[in-house]
Amino acid sequence: MKCRRCHAEAAVALPSHNAAFCPDCFLDFFSRQVARGIEEQGLMTKNDRVLAALSGGKDSLALMLELSRQGYDVTGLHIDLGIPGSSQAARAVVERFCARFGFKLIVRETKAEGLAIPDVKAAVKRPICSVCGKIKRHIFNREAREGGFTVLATGHNLDDEVARLTSNTLRWDTGYLADQGPVLEDSEGFARKVKPLWRLTEYETANYAFLMGLENHYAPCPYSQGASFSTLKGLWIDLEEKMPGRKMHFYQGFLSRGRAAFRSVAPADEEILAPCTICGSPTSSGVCGYCRIRSLVQERTAQDASASGLPE
Amino acid sequence: MKCRRCHAEAAVALPSHNAAFCPDCFLDFFSRQVARGIEEQGLMTKNDRVLAALSGGKDSLALMLELSRQGYDVTGLHIDLGIPGSSQAARAVVERFCARFGFKLIVRETKAEGLAIPDVKAAVKRPICSVCGKIKRHIFNREAREGGFTVLATGHNLDDEVARLTSNTLRWDTGYLADQGPVLEDSEGFARKVKPLWRLTEYETANYAFLMGLENHYAPCPYSQGASFSTLKGLWIDLEEKMPGRKMHFYQGFLSRGRAAFRSVAPADEEILAPCTICGSPTSSGVCGYCRIRSLVQERTAQDASASGLPE
Repeated sequence: MKCRRCHAEAAVALPSHNAAFCPDCFLDFFSRQVARGIEEQGLMTKNDRVLAALSGGKDSLALMLELSRQGYDVTGLHIDLGIPGSSQAARAVVERFCARFGFKLIVRETKAEGLAIPDVKAAVKRPICSVCGKIKRHIFNREAREGGFTVLATGHNLDDEVARLTSNTLRWDTGYLADQGPVLEDSEGFARKVKPLWRLTEYETANYAFLMGLENHYAPCPYSQGASFSTLKGLWIDLEEKMPGRKMHFYQGFLSRGRAAFRSVAPADEEILAPCTICGSPTSSGVCGYCRIRSLVQERTAQDASASGLPE
Repeated sequence: MKCRRCHAEAAVALPSHNAAFCPDCFLDFFSRQVARGIEEQGLMTKNDRVLAALSGGKDSLALMLELSRQGYDVTGLHIDLGIPGSSQAARAVVERFCARFGFKLIVRETKAEGLAIPDVKAAVKRPICSVCGKIKRHIFNREAREGGFTVLATGHNLDDEVARLTSNTLRWDTGYLADQGPVLEDSEGFARKVKPLWRLTEYETANYAFLMGLENHYAPCPYSQGASFSTLKGLWIDLEEKMPGRKMHFYQGFLSRGRAAFRSVAPADEEILAPCTICGSPTSSGVCGYCRIRSLVQERTAQDASASGLPE
């Protein structure tokens, strides 16, 4: 198989694009897809100050590297969740990555805020993944706001977006369907959120990470039940194999035709936001979700301390 | 496994309903699903004169039998397409079925109208399945109108509907999505069309046909490339196995929430219908599609006759 552009030996086959590329031309293809994804959906400009969420996974590292190569003013933000056996490894990957390329990096530890995830898991009855997500979003937003960043970028790829869209569509969740897309505009107190890798599949970001020599191994979260949307992602692997290109066609059709239908029936967003009475973050419920979780964890810690004090 | 209702030995397992039934209770379940499907979506009443499209397949026979058992005034309509090796067998199944149960049956032959499908296939360049569908819909409509029927019923089941909905959704075809459902209201010159089996899967209608002793074998159409939507139906088999009940949930969610969104952005139907100048059927284009196909076949037949006359 030959590279479509330079006719050298191809290294990456892309049936959905009816193409194959040698390593250099693939990296060029990847860059052009990122640039096109940013431009087509108006995600951001070179004047933006970009904060990139770095989990340590290949998608987030590929995002950071590629935005930097394209000349964006980008700073990494890693949140150390304090999960034994997982968080240390992820943080080390991110720190080595940023040191290697000379990237600016902010690290925040949830433990320093009284929210080490094992403590949260012990104190909160809801599924830990959704609670952890809420804490991370709060910190991302806060750091973007306090650091003067205009855009918050995440490494979500086409497979993530299509799996989420499929899940929302299977439930016909018109509220989520009205909002989904590669950009979520800023609103009072919330940074603009963008997904510059939305045109690229997980397979493509994996190839990019491999060809760029990125360190990709870290211990998966022990609390997560495997990758989210794994059933739907498996279904799309089948469908894409039978109908190459269908995945992108589905997502782009949604952006250009489907979403407008859901927006037309979405109730006007009349939620009134006010600063959280504890931390000042915008919230519709007096005290924000992050601060409520913190209170729960503090109560639980106080109870534990008092219980362990009894026998004395 | 025991029957959920009477605790006899179960014969049909229905994971999507979290149930299993013995033969008698399954037939009762089937009847209740048909009745509920008719009532929930307001398909028709006992005052309607129903024309049921009978292809000879298990779904159409199950439809006719069940509507009759429930006391509907139903007449069968079979269209003999004149396809060698297939049409004769299908017609014989339908005729034996109607004779056995004493059902009223109308049979129309496309050949008598100059439209034996092999001749159509030879004269028309477009894919034969879509042309054949157009001819059948024309005849269904005409017979409903001329026979004074108020409703035209077809044997489409939940799998057919879900596969079609999935196909429309993958393309975000907002026009089709605004219209899809178990009932298509009548409009000037077109009979109201209903799908009373929309709550039942292909597996369930197959079990019904088997338990009712219906003759189910006939030769498949030699022109058709296998069942329509077979890839999407295969995909739903996987999905339903992993998430039992999801299929019905998807379809009902569409009817109750999704469709309204597409209707809200659908352009008002401003197509002006007038009687076809040849046959009088409603059409937006002077001469209706059926009559245009007939003209093509007549021209081709005339050419063939003239060509075979040349050597003399």
